[in-house]
Amino acid sequence: MKDIQNQLDNRKIVIDKVGIKDVKYPITVLDRANGFQNTIASVNMYVELPHQFRGTHMSRFIAILNEHRGEITMRNIGTILDDMMKRLDAEAAHLEIEFPYFIEKTAPISKEKSLLCYTCRFLASMNDIEDFILEVQVPVITLCPCSKEISDYGAHNQRSLVVLQVRFKEFLWIEDLISLIESCASGEIFALLEPEDEKYIIEHTYNNPRFVEDVVREIVIKLEKDTNIIWYYVSSENFESIHNHSAYALVEKKV
Amino acid sequence: MKDIQNQLDNRKIVIDKVGIKDVKYPITVLDRANGFQNTIASVNMYVELPHQFRGTHMSRFIAILNEHRGEITMRNIGTILDDMMKRLDAEAAHLEIEFPYFIEKTAPISKEKSLLCYTCRFLASMNDIEDFILEVQVPVITLCPCSKEISDYGAHNQRSLVVLQVRFKEFLWIEDLISLIESCASGEIFALLEPEDEKYIIEHTYNNPRFVEDVVREIVIKLEKDTNIIWYYVSSENFESIHNHSAYALVEKKV
Amino acid sequence: MKDIQNQLDNRKIVIDKVGIKDVKYPITVLDRANGFQNTIASVNMYVELPHQFRGTHMSRFIAILNEHRGEITMRNIGTILDDMMKRLDAEAAHLEIEFPYFIEKTAPISKEKSLLCYTCRFLASMNDIEDFILEVQVPVITLCPCSKEISDYGAHNQRSLVVLQVRFKEFLWIEDLISLIESCASGEIFALLEPEDEKYIIEHTYNNPRFVEDVVREIVIKLEKDTNIIWYYVSSENFESIHNHSAYALVEKKV
Amino acid sequence: MKDIQNQLDNRKIVIDKVGIKDVKYPITVLDRANGFQNTIASVNMYVELPHQFRGTHMSRFIAILNEHRGEITMRNIGTILDDMMKRLDAEAAHLEIEFPYFIEKTAPISKEKSLLCYTCRFLASMNDIEDFILEVQVPVITLCPCSKEISDYGAHNQRSLVVLQVRFKEFLWIEDLISLIESCASGEIFALLEPEDEKYIIEHTYNNPRFVEDVVREIVIKLEKDTNIIWYYVSSENFESIHNHSAYALVEKKV
Repeated sequence: MKDIQNQLDNRKIVIDKVGIKDVKYPITVLDRANGFQNTIASVNMYVELPHQFRGTHMSRFIAILNEHRGEITMRNIGTILDDMMKRLDAEAAHLEIEFPYFIEKTAPISKEKSLLCYTCRFLASMNDIEDFILEVQVPVITLCPCSKEISDYGAHNQRSLVVLQVRFKEFLWIEDLISLIESCASGEIFALLEPEDEKYIIEHTYNNPRFVEDVVREIVIKLEKDTNIIWYYVSSENFESIHNHSAYALVEKKV
Repeated sequence: MKDIQNQLDNRKIVIDKVGIKDVKYPITVLDRANGFQNTIASVNMYVELPHQFRGTHMSRFIAILNEHRGEITMRNIGTILDDMMKRLDAEAAHLEIEFPYFIEKTAPISKEKSLLCYTCRFLASMNDIEDFILEVQVPVITLCPCSKEISDYGAHNQRSLVVLQVRFKEFLWIEDLISLIESCASGEIFALLEPEDEKYIIEHTYNNPRFVEDVVREIVIKLEKDTNIIWYYVSSENFESIHNHSAYALVEKKV
Repeated sequence: MKDIQNQLDNRKIVIDKVGIKDVKYPITVLDRANGFQNTIASVNMYVELPHQFRGTHMSRFIAILNEHRGEITMRNIGTILDDMMKRLDAEAAHLEIEFPYFIEKTAPISKEKSLLCYTCRFLASMNDIEDFILEVQVPVITLCPCSKEISDYGAHNQRSLVVLQVRFKEFLWIEDLISLIESCASGEIFALLEPEDEKYIIEHTYNNPRFVEDVVREIVIKLEKDTNIIWYYVSSENFESIHNHSAYALVEKKV
Repeated sequence: MKDIQNQLDNRKIVIDKVGIKDVKYPITVLDRANGFQNTIASVNMYVELPHQFRGTHMSRFIAILNEHRGEITMRNIGTILDDMMKRLDAEAAHLEIEFPYFIEKTAPISKEKSLLCYTCRFLASMNDIEDFILEVQVPVITLCPCSKEISDYGAHNQRSLVVLQVRFKEFLWIEDLISLIESCASGEIFALLEPEDEKYIIEHTYNNPRFVEDVVREIVIKLEKDTNIIWYYVSSENFESIHNHSAYALVEKKV
């Protein structure tokens, strides 16, 4: 069969990224408590396409994904990127993997256990050098300091979503990033709470009012103290209970 | 050209609904304060297809939509359904129109004005008889009565979404349904609040704790008192601030 | 602690469904090829709330989910519904579980293997009697018969999504419903295709043009022949390549 | 009332962006054919927050939006950013506006008119200098050259979405960018097509096979010839008819 993709292209245009997007695939990731965790990823895989080739070979991406799905972790992502570059004759490769990750949490007073789902992403690239960004998305509670101050009783609070991306030196656990973030909000979220837990969390939240600005600043302070963290990008979004829009704050480490 | 759609079909299967889905189109709807409001709809248009025809004529739906987009309201939706039945030779027609609808709201203390967006839907059908359902989706605040009771201070509150569908006798305004719903929640939502408004809303919300169950029951009580309402389907969903899932309640009037 | 939920309610309004919505939880389902499959569900759990109670106990739903997540299948869903009714003192219970389900498919010519993701749902209810609906969502290819007929060469084709719900007598495999649906489209979808597979599928698709109306009718014919199927609801949606909207058809078995 | 937001903050952390996100608001934009077009925007407005302030004043963003919604265009976006900087005492301001934009298109043979919806975005920033990016999202048809070559008849085709961002010197019309993009695909999309149009488009598409790589390269060639364009970022995503994932390509102009 004629290989149209390998046809010579004379338009002189390098394509920065070409490949497959939004492939759903079951994968296995590392889990601090249990060794491994089965999850379901949405995967993007791209390579750079040199100007002289008309197209890339899309089926090879799936073949590579197929071989590695038994373990896709920070430990072997370099190998996968290497594979992509070799088998697609590319100078650069990019791998983006988004997956739900579950952690068993213990309610603060009743000690009841339940699972909470956190969306995570691996954003990995390789050309001359390898780049790896870990992203965690963490739902938390925020209670507005201003509304607490001006009101005789009560204060508006709501679910917020913190998104943190980091580059780092040595291996780190998703679990540690999540704990760091949860400690910076007004309160922590659980799937299962008994009344005594609910009382604890509500009073704790009321005692720890945080603007969306406070949440990102507290996270930045903790990240700056951690010598393993090279770079970060942290945003927080409050799904405001008193509005139908969000309040949002973002800090990125300048390099 | 050969008309494949008109080919005789001998599979003896009536198709309940066939047509176009998710067409984005600008339309004009009625607005109590301003006469008319320009908005952008997502439109589904279906007809029943008799067993003896192989296919419907998809382009005619768009032609009909094109002619009527200058006014699509409760007043002329019967005419549109009639048109669909005639021009598509159908025994039944269905029209589903979803659109954002804006109302200018006045903040409770500062009296500042801003617009709030409510998603609305018209669900209309015609065969021997015409059926029309009006849906409004209203964001509100709910504050948990249990958490208020068990905590020494504070209480969890969050944005909730009430979805109400009604069948009715005489023309009614979207604005009235929205007011009815907003009066049944712990508090009302605005795009723009000054600090004095925020204080008012927070204290009002704290003084009016409502379970998701309470919200739907209060709405049902008001709907039952309104002799213009024939049927309703009302749900409320709390985007819980202390969980990463929703609390949900639903009541449908039995007929 | 005061149990606000158990307070007497004198509004005389039964709540049809009250509970938790959009809980993400890892579960295990049956898999014909491998015995079991780990997946991640989005779960809704509701009970009926008698008029005399003010609220339900939301934490009990999560506790029940937690106990059963090791196996949630057509075989034990009755037990889970029973549990919900007992532990929440309810006359009716509802369980809705949506999950991605992967099947290993073999490319038609190269025989290369890859996984394809199908969204499935269990919709189960119990009051005096138990009701169970299985839903499968199957992506397929459709090629327009009209465009093939009127054009000198080529024909527009596109990805379509078939959604099938069934009630049935004896246990049936998700895999069989999916095969039934795939055999009724113009062509079948795979994650991994070599050029020889692509040639086969394109020619096969061109030889089997199907309107959205044809797809649902072909499925109905096969379902009507299967004495195990009591009821069905089948829709197909073409994400038209020549439009920015969908073509849609739906047939529901009358009972 | 105490102004908590103005409290002195001693954490020494500048917040890059703080403000409101996902506000739905009706706005008016420029329209080449009709002067102006009413549409509905989703708006993000952020400012930089100096390290010494604890919080920003969220209500002022809505007040500014309220004043300008009668015209939000490339012509006055600098004024809005200026306003944000002044009234929020900020060194930098960011405005992101996403809106559906409708263009009346004429079918190629029947000359029937219908509207097509394109999602557009304004991404504007101001600190010392002003930056403005215009984004247009254009649905098109692509037909795979490889599948055409290897098959005896037929070829897979599908809806694709091109996303183009540009920086430019002199005012340019959204309409021109859209035309440029549509001319680079295999075929163009319309809401309303009569059979004779469909025949024309299908044959035209078959005669113009384009890989996702070809589409972005053809667009780059045209953009490079236009001296008004300073920078571009162009991606194309094919919602593959033979797969359940997308094929994707991206080129960004290096500066």
